[in-house]
Amino acid sequence: MKKFVNDPKNFVPDMLHGLAVANPDSLKYVPEYNLIYRADAPKADKVSIIQGSGSGHEPAHVMAVGPGMLDAACPGDVFSAPPFDYVYETIKLLASPKGVLLLVNNYTGDRMVFQMAEEAAQADGITVRTLFIDDDVAVQDSLYTIGRRGVAGNFFVMKAVGAAAEAGADLDELIRIGEKVNSVTRTMGIALTACTPPAKGSPLFELGDDEIEVGVGIHGEPGRRREKIASADALVEEMFTAVVNDLPFQAGDRVAIMANGLGGTPISELYLAYGLAHDLAVAKGLVVERSYVGEYCTSLDMAGASITLIKLDDEIAELLAAPAAIPIRVF
Amino acid sequence: MKKFVNDPKNFVPDMLHGLAVANPDSLKYVPEYNLIYRADAPKADKVSIIQGSGSGHEPAHVMAVGPGMLDAACPGDVFSAPPFDYVYETIKLLASPKGVLLLVNNYTGDRMVFQMAEEAAQADGITVRTLFIDDDVAVQDSLYTIGRRGVAGNFFVMKAVGAAAEAGADLDELIRIGEKVNSVTRTMGIALTACTPPAKGSPLFELGDDEIEVGVGIHGEPGRRREKIASADALVEEMFTAVVNDLPFQAGDRVAIMANGLGGTPISELYLAYGLAHDLAVAKGLVVERSYVGEYCTSLDMAGASITLIKLDDEIAELLAAPAAIPIRVF
Repeated sequence: MKKFVNDPKNFVPDMLHGLAVANPDSLKYVPEYNLIYRADAPKADKVSIIQGSGSGHEPAHVMAVGPGMLDAACPGDVFSAPPFDYVYETIKLLASPKGVLLLVNNYTGDRMVFQMAEEAAQADGITVRTLFIDDDVAVQDSLYTIGRRGVAGNFFVMKAVGAAAEAGADLDELIRIGEKVNSVTRTMGIALTACTPPAKGSPLFELGDDEIEVGVGIHGEPGRRREKIASADALVEEMFTAVVNDLPFQAGDRVAIMANGLGGTPISELYLAYGLAHDLAVAKGLVVERSYVGEYCTSLDMAGASITLIKLDDEIAELLAAPAAIPIRVF
Repeated sequence: MKKFVNDPKNFVPDMLHGLAVANPDSLKYVPEYNLIYRADAPKADKVSIIQGSGSGHEPAHVMAVGPGMLDAACPGDVFSAPPFDYVYETIKLLASPKGVLLLVNNYTGDRMVFQMAEEAAQADGITVRTLFIDDDVAVQDSLYTIGRRGVAGNFFVMKAVGAAAEAGADLDELIRIGEKVNSVTRTMGIALTACTPPAKGSPLFELGDDEIEVGVGIHGEPGRRREKIASADALVEEMFTAVVNDLPFQAGDRVAIMANGLGGTPISELYLAYGLAHDLAVAKGLVVERSYVGEYCTSLDMAGASITLIKLDDEIAELLAAPAAIPIRVF
C-alpha cells in the first residue's frame, strides 16, 4: 500500500484533524463523533443540514461543510456508515428551532443508522426529517442497497437545499426542493482501477490490467458488467447514454453536466471526458447551462469517473448559482 | 494504460476542448496554439500575464486562467515546452499597452522558448518581460534544469501578481512582487508511484511496489534518492524539514502551507498530510495564517504530494486573499 497514512485505524481522524487545522475559523471539530460542523451553527433562523456516510468519498461530505452547503457531517470509518451515537449527538448539537434535515445516500447501513437517530431525536422533541438520495442508474439493487445507490449527484441536492436553507426556507420547503432535485438527477460511473482502503492495505477487488467495471459503485461494488478498457469516446458514451435514457432527458431540456473523478483520475482526463459528454449533450439537443468538472464524490484512490446530468428549471438553476463557501478551494 | 483518452496524440487538444466548452462565457480557445485566454483580455489598463509550460501539470496552468490569476496559458504537449510560435502568437494576441508579463517555471526548454518569443515580441514593439520561478529545494540541477526547478509554489507567484495586476500595478511592480514571492517560497515533493504519459502508454519510470522517490520532479525526474515507503509522519517530516531549513523559516514567521497532490493521491490523504505539516509548523513556532490543500501542480496520474511553505508579510497576505475566479471550482 502506497499512501500517506500513519496507523491505518486512525486514517479518518487523522484526515479530519488536517481538515480542522486547515480551517480554524470556519469549522469546528469534535473528534469523539468524527463531527465537522460550521463554526456558526446551529442558527436559530436556519434549518441545520447534516450529512453522514462512510468516509473515503471526500470531498463528500466533510469538505462540503460551510455557508450555502452543509452545516455538519459526521462520517463513519472508510466505507462504513457512522455509528448511531455519531448521528444522534450531531443532531442534538445542531438542533435548530427551524429543524434539522438529514441527507442520506441510499445505502442500507446508512438508512438504518439515520432512521434510528431521527427517531431518537424526535423523541427528544427535536424537529428532524430525512431525505434519501438515489441518483445512480447503474443497477437497481446492489451489494449494499435496496433500490438505487446515492452517488455524485448527491452534490446537487446538498447545493440546492443548502442555498435554500441559507435563504430562510423551512423544513417542508427543503424536503420539496431536495426531492425535486433528486428526481431530476442521474449518474453513472466507470472504474478503471480498484481502490485500496487503508485498513485493508490491498485493493478491495481484483480488476485485470485491461479491465474496467461499468456502473461501479463508490465502494467498489459491482455495476453492470466487466469489460475491456476502451477509448474515452466509448467510455463516456456508455455513461452518458445510460444517464440520458434513464430520466429520460429530451431535446430542449436545460441541463448541467458533471464529470466527477473517483479519486485517482487527474483533472486533465476529467476535462477531456467532460468535453465528450458536452458534445453528446449538444448533439442530443440538450441546452447545457452549467458545468462541473473535478472530484465531488470519490472512492478513495480509485481511477475512474462518473457522469451526472441534472435537468434544470429556473428554481434549480438559481439555487445552484447561489454563493457557497466550503473548504475546497484553490486560492 | 487505463485512462480517459482517445488518440493519445490528441490528449492535450481534447482536454482543452473540454475546458473551453465547460467555460464558454469566461474563456476563449485558439486550438492552433493550445491557447486558453480570458474572454475579456487583453485590457488596455492591465498588464497581461501569460504562463506556458508542458501539459500534464493541470490545473497548472490552463485551468488557472481568469480574473485575478492568468490572462492566458499556451501549454505544449505533455511534459514538453510549448513551441516558439505558441508563445509568440499568444504574446501578440494578449499585448496590452501596459505590457505583458511571462511567468516561466525554470526548465531549460521553457526558458529557451520564452526568451526567444520575448525577444521576437520586443522587436515588434511589445513591452514584455519574463519572471522565472524556482521554488523546488530538492535538487540544485536536474535532468531538465540548470538551477532549481519551478513546481507547485508557482501558484503563489501567479496568485500574487494576478491580484496586483488586477489592481492596476505596472510591469515593474509585478516583477518586484513576483520575485519577492518566489524568493520566500519553497517546495519539496515525494512520488509514491510513477506517472503514465498518454502517448507513451506505460509508466515513465520504474518504481518498486514499496519504493518512493524523495524530491521527485513534476516530470518524474529523479530527486534526492529512492527509499522504502514509510509512514505519513516520516514522509511529511522529510518534505517539511527540507523546505523549512532551506529558506530558512524561523520561529515567529508568518506562513501559508500548501499540501499539493501530484495527480493520483486523493484529497483525504492530502488533508492528512496537511495536518501533519501544520503540526510541525506550529511546533517550530511558525504562525500558520493560510492553508492550501488540493491539486495545484500535478504530474499526470502520479500518486504523491509536495509541501510548499511561503513566508508572508502584509503585502503578500493581502494579495493571496484577494478574489480570483478560475475554472476550478466545486460549486
